[in-house]
Amino acid sequence: MATHMDPEEFRRHGHALVDWIADYWAGLPGRPVTPSEAPGAVAARLPAGPPERGDGLTGLLDDLNRVVLPGVTHWQHPGFFGYFPANTSGPSVLGDLASAGLGVQGMLWATSPAATEVEIVMLDWLADALDLPARFRSTSAGGGVIQDSASSATLVAVLAALHRASGGRWREAGVDRRYRVYASTQGHSSIEKAARIAGLGADGVHPVAVEPATLAMDPAALRAAIEADRAAGVLPAIVVATIGTTSTTAIDPLPAIGELCREYGIWLHVDAAYAGSAAVCPELRWSHAGLEYADSYCFDPHKWLLTGFDCDAFWVADRAELVAALTVLPEYLRNAASDSGAVVDYRDWQVPLGRRFRALKLWFVLRWYGVEGLRDHIRSGVGLAAEFADLVRADDRFEIVTPHPFSLVCFRLRDGSPSTGAADTDTDTDTDRVNAELLARVNATGRIYLTHTRVRDRYTLRLAVGAPATTRETVEDAWRRIRDTATDLLDGKAAA
Amino acid sequence: MATHMDPEEFRRHGHALVDWIADYWAGLPGRPVTPSEAPGAVAARLPAGPPERGDGLTGLLDDLNRVVLPGVTHWQHPGFFGYFPANTSGPSVLGDLASAGLGVQGMLWATSPAATEVEIVMLDWLADALDLPARFRSTSAGGGVIQDSASSATLVAVLAALHRASGGRWREAGVDRRYRVYASTQGHSSIEKAARIAGLGADGVHPVAVEPATLAMDPAALRAAIEADRAAGVLPAIVVATIGTTSTTAIDPLPAIGELCREYGIWLHVDAAYAGSAAVCPELRWSHAGLEYADSYCFDPHKWLLTGFDCDAFWVADRAELVAALTVLPEYLRNAASDSGAVVDYRDWQVPLGRRFRALKLWFVLRWYGVEGLRDHIRSGVGLAAEFADLVRADDRFEIVTPHPFSLVCFRLRDGSPSTGAADTDTDTDTDRVNAELLARVNATGRIYLTHTRVRDRYTLRLAVGAPATTRETVEDAWRRIRDTATDLLDGKAAA
Repeated sequence: MATHMDPEEFRRHGHALVDWIADYWAGLPGRPVTPSEAPGAVAARLPAGPPERGDGLTGLLDDLNRVVLPGVTHWQHPGFFGYFPANTSGPSVLGDLASAGLGVQGMLWATSPAATEVEIVMLDWLADALDLPARFRSTSAGGGVIQDSASSATLVAVLAALHRASGGRWREAGVDRRYRVYASTQGHSSIEKAARIAGLGADGVHPVAVEPATLAMDPAALRAAIEADRAAGVLPAIVVATIGTTSTTAIDPLPAIGELCREYGIWLHVDAAYAGSAAVCPELRWSHAGLEYADSYCFDPHKWLLTGFDCDAFWVADRAELVAALTVLPEYLRNAASDSGAVVDYRDWQVPLGRRFRALKLWFVLRWYGVEGLRDHIRSGVGLAAEFADLVRADDRFEIVTPHPFSLVCFRLRDGSPSTGAADTDTDTDTDRVNAELLARVNATGRIYLTHTRVRDRYTLRLAVGAPATTRETVEDAWRRIRDTATDLLDGKAAA
Repeated sequence: MATHMDPEEFRRHGHALVDWIADYWAGLPGRPVTPSEAPGAVAARLPAGPPERGDGLTGLLDDLNRVVLPGVTHWQHPGFFGYFPANTSGPSVLGDLASAGLGVQGMLWATSPAATEVEIVMLDWLADALDLPARFRSTSAGGGVIQDSASSATLVAVLAALHRASGGRWREAGVDRRYRVYASTQGHSSIEKAARIAGLGADGVHPVAVEPATLAMDPAALRAAIEADRAAGVLPAIVVATIGTTSTTAIDPLPAIGELCREYGIWLHVDAAYAGSAAVCPELRWSHAGLEYADSYCFDPHKWLLTGFDCDAFWVADRAELVAALTVLPEYLRNAASDSGAVVDYRDWQVPLGRRFRALKLWFVLRWYGVEGLRDHIRSGVGLAAEFADLVRADDRFEIVTPHPFSLVCFRLRDGSPSTGAADTDTDTDTDRVNAELLARVNATGRIYLTHTRVRDRYTLRLAVGAPATTRETVEDAWRRIRDTATDLLDGKAAA
């Protein structure tokens, strides 16, 4: 017989692992943010094949330290400023642990009613916390659900939009490739991926021009795109607007876009993956103006709301449309509760069939922090980003390249800045290379980690604040490292 | 400032929650398997809105007991025989906890090399444990990846197949609706869902007839379907064959299907979501004969291999095809390691962008059990199912309706069984109703939980063994309850 871990063994190992995590968090600031090992180093520390006999987890914690940690990029490190941070928190980890321990599979209401009902209520709580339009509440025709990611939310929004646009023919007959998806040139790569998965191809996305200064979608360009397409026999199905683009946190103008969508009968999906969390703060809700036009909306508590990946919160205004697009009902999933029509079966709101009890981590996070605590966290990030931007602005070698309404700052060394001593020989491409080198050097210190993007085709550094452990001191230290590295780099360049 | 949970608070709350889980597991046999509350009962125990101020998780464990547990279907209960069990284990929960504590996001190799490399190695370990064909190993042109579910694995297989079949045009131009997906009439509902998502519509699936006795795909019917479709200008893109169908664990004949796929140049995806775990046992590998023909294959360690949901293990023979179908590369995800081509970026192997460090739970499970321990677990399930089937066979009121090579037994009260005393008045539909009533009554005892299917259009009960806590005594007790309930039911029916 297999030797299963009994509850007392679990208790013992569980306490040890909780301690390991607590110690990991306490020691995080002392670790380099990113590993420096070459590809294959972690794999080389693992045996080539599985053990024939179990070892009772002997040496497990040592192996986590020895095999795994040297290859970890520490996303929870106070010096992690890359991508958009994906921050968890103690309460979230505990909620996930409770979910793993219960081990329920909530594909249907009947397969664990609590998994479905806590999720319905938590999505309503989040809608309250963000002051979302009433049409997204479960008490209306709409409702919310947890998706694994904003990519999946975009995909299901596209599918529901295609179903609606085709008058329901899509479900049986397949996709008509004349349908188009509209997004700004700054829209997330998952929009193209969703169009591709849905059978529209990359050609099924019509990129819409942005205002040069803000990088927000230009509604006039959207109207022109829609009208030209319609004249050519192309069928507009969905507009994906973004609150807080990934590259620079640009905010598409929802009121104007929403009016257009209403005028032409187009599904409006709003992707606020990162910036949605900001709406817990009343003073940042201007970013969500016009959301009442949206047919669907999502944001990621796993990015900026202290909830561990994966947890994308997705709402639709008409849940019946979503379910109609995605439901398949084999006999082995039929049950009295579903047949009664009185319950929500979340399997019909998503791509996969099975689902974890992810609402527990939201419950734990909301209980621990309260909405006021979440506002404090958001305000801290916005405030620290503003302080960092002020430091950058005060150094005339640098420029801030876009507005920074949230916690992301996009900046770069200027072209031919006088203080570089390289003004007369610098070309655009040279400056791009200098900025790329600056990024590589500050990241190589291991104390901070930033990533990059291209803004108006120029290499640009991104610093995004998010980790709970990040303080004013961390941000000031980050700036000093960037500034000093720039000085070394530019002096070296000038001397060369 | 938000009051974050510090490491010492996490340690304290973490120990308490580990204890709560240990106690939950220890007390599980004493709980009813399924809740009896009406829809809305759990939601009604939660406040209408989120707390304004955090409460430091005061009363948290009491609330788990009071609010959540009365609404939980206990999937880890020894008496849970429904669907396919989705069983976790202590080591899996610990692996998930380590993953949550690290909080890394492994979308790219660069975003946490260990998350990618441990996953590559664990999928190779699993391929070893199941003795999968060499073409699926990372050392070949193929490789493995964790998907959330077999539904998602089927979807990405369909997408890669469409990309290949179109000579790469699919990615830009979209799907040609002349492509077809083939699966037996017993194939999982996720195949239709994948076809629908991919833009082929439900009409894009060609259901293939099965052998009546085994419910396995009839290769002659598959050939006839392919040839008729080709003659009509329809383009066969992918066959989804199943090892262990959801309804009855039928096994499609891979050698014959594989030859057909090779002959016509069709992608072969093999869905062994439930039964794949059986291949850890050499004596059960006959079920996987012909797998060397497959272009892709998946099974769910989260079903029968003691690894908590979600963990579907998916392999492809040509990883370049999969990546070509799914990759999108915006500037903000570019990095030196990816540009070098020397690393695997798993975001290109799946629908979503982000991903958790799910390989840790596989590592913990494989270490704790060893392959021998996993074999013991599978053999226990197969043995208990065989014992249950013998008990059913010994009662001539019942019949076993399909072979039971794994741990699922499909059975029912016979039509007009002499012992029912209702032989002369019974109709097929009546017997279906009696079987449905039998299921409802045994489930209402709260001691066991079974689900149903329809086999050859007749209502059929399913008993699937999977939980580590399930013993011979549990199974014998289940049979006694079923037998005695049948007696009550049939006597009552005879008396009526």
